[in-house]
Amino acid sequence: MTSSELFSEERSAEVVVASLANTPDPRLRTVLSSLVRHLHDFVKDVELTEAEWDAAIAFLTATGQKCDALRQEFVLLSDVLGVSMLVETINHRSGGATESTVLGPFHLVDSPPRELGEQISLDGKGEPCLVTGRVIGPDGEAIGGASVDVWQANEDGFYDVQRPETIPASNLRGLFTAAADGTFWFRTVLPRYYPIPTDGPVGDLLRATGRHPYRPAHIHFIVQAAGYAPVTTHLFVADSPYLESDAVFGVKPTLVRDFPTVDDPARAAAVDLPNPFRTVDFEVSLKKA
Amino acid sequence: MTSSELFSEERSAEVVVASLANTPDPRLRTVLSSLVRHLHDFVKDVELTEAEWDAAIAFLTATGQKCDALRQEFVLLSDVLGVSMLVETINHRSGGATESTVLGPFHLVDSPPRELGEQISLDGKGEPCLVTGRVIGPDGEAIGGASVDVWQANEDGFYDVQRPETIPASNLRGLFTAAADGTFWFRTVLPRYYPIPTDGPVGDLLRATGRHPYRPAHIHFIVQAAGYAPVTTHLFVADSPYLESDAVFGVKPTLVRDFPTVDDPARAAAVDLPNPFRTVDFEVSLKKA
Repeated sequence: MTSSELFSEERSAEVVVASLANTPDPRLRTVLSSLVRHLHDFVKDVELTEAEWDAAIAFLTATGQKCDALRQEFVLLSDVLGVSMLVETINHRSGGATESTVLGPFHLVDSPPRELGEQISLDGKGEPCLVTGRVIGPDGEAIGGASVDVWQANEDGFYDVQRPETIPASNLRGLFTAAADGTFWFRTVLPRYYPIPTDGPVGDLLRATGRHPYRPAHIHFIVQAAGYAPVTTHLFVADSPYLESDAVFGVKPTLVRDFPTVDDPARAAAVDLPNPFRTVDFEVSLKKA
Repeated sequence: MTSSELFSEERSAEVVVASLANTPDPRLRTVLSSLVRHLHDFVKDVELTEAEWDAAIAFLTATGQKCDALRQEFVLLSDVLGVSMLVETINHRSGGATESTVLGPFHLVDSPPRELGEQISLDGKGEPCLVTGRVIGPDGEAIGGASVDVWQANEDGFYDVQRPETIPASNLRGLFTAAADGTFWFRTVLPRYYPIPTDGPVGDLLRATGRHPYRPAHIHFIVQAAGYAPVTTHLFVADSPYLESDAVFGVKPTLVRDFPTVDDPARAAAVDLPNPFRTVDFEVSLKKA
């Protein structure tokens, strides 16, 4: 036995990484080795105390035990530490196309198919809004037939699945197919900002760090078409509270839009909305697959 | 709003750290800010995929859900990643005194007080062993009356609390008081190496990385005296398997001892042990409090 094989403060990460030498999967070895190095660097940088280590163990344990079929507290923790957004961003570099952001927990696998122009607000509550857009490729070519999956919170900040007793199923959801020229449009209401769940360890963390739990108002989109890379993204409402402090760091500058008010009874009648109404236009640019 | 306030791959950690600016406790802010920087660096270094992130979330969740009143899987995870040992080492730099190592899960708050020389093996099973030692201070001064708390596994690798139905309570435990000249001694058996629990996510991790779950044979000590800093440590048996690959990285070169065999009927009779028997001597050096 030589001392170089054994643990010391200086060589701690090196010794642990050496123990991973027989990992059969080379990628797993790479990922775990990097994790160990960064984790040990963190402990050394802050000289973590034993009481802090105890608190960290208790926090991680409580986070795991808060998880059940309907609640994923570790995803929430990843979200509020910006890790979810970072993983999303690294894995979907836009290359000049529309930027991505987090999927979030409220997407349904089967959104209700709707005709272009349909109203997705089933209860009619909220400030009326007309969403128009176009799906294009890298050379500006129209992507006719692209699928445009949309979902959003209502004017109280809730998705249908959060309040099944008071909000109609499929409220503010729609799966649209772009026209031959790539355009799409639908009628909806302006979404509201809303809080992430705060009744678990992640809520404790937000309170301990003086952070609020809110996400600024946004409409979710997944846009996809054969031959192109799909994009999962949001449109953010430029005058929403919390736009500069999204609890999960989902806001990218290119995804923020003004939703100007149109006060024009003739145009309102033409799109079958009350006057006045809000509007937004979203040109979605996909890169090649 | 300026783009500098919003998330990008390049500025991800900076943006999240900025969100911690209002943390009331400055130490919490420091620790979390460092954690965020190292965590984001890790994700970027390996370009963590979405599937790997999913696997990490599932692993952490399962680790939390494995914990109960008798099992702490996050501590075990910290142990096998060398984090427990690092925290222990950073918080107890020896400064030339006897080095520390991990406490482990098998210490009892109330060890049974015993007279110097007592036999701590209550079932008499195992290779007989005489432990002698002395507690001294930084200038070599004897620390009479020092408390020497001892516990160890038996020849099957089990602590009493792990097999209450077959091992007598307090087997291989003792709380001794050093003599006026700082010396202590007791009779015991040679401990055996043993595995950490492998029926949870940490066991899966060890298998996936080709690592065994064993700890080399050792005797635990906590030595303390008024006016000196206490030390929590082990004596490792130099000819034990796994000495160079302790699953929790607890081995330090200064804590390894030969346990030579004495074949001398007269000496065996004098210490009331069968002949032959193993021996070890442990000079414990405490630093000032």
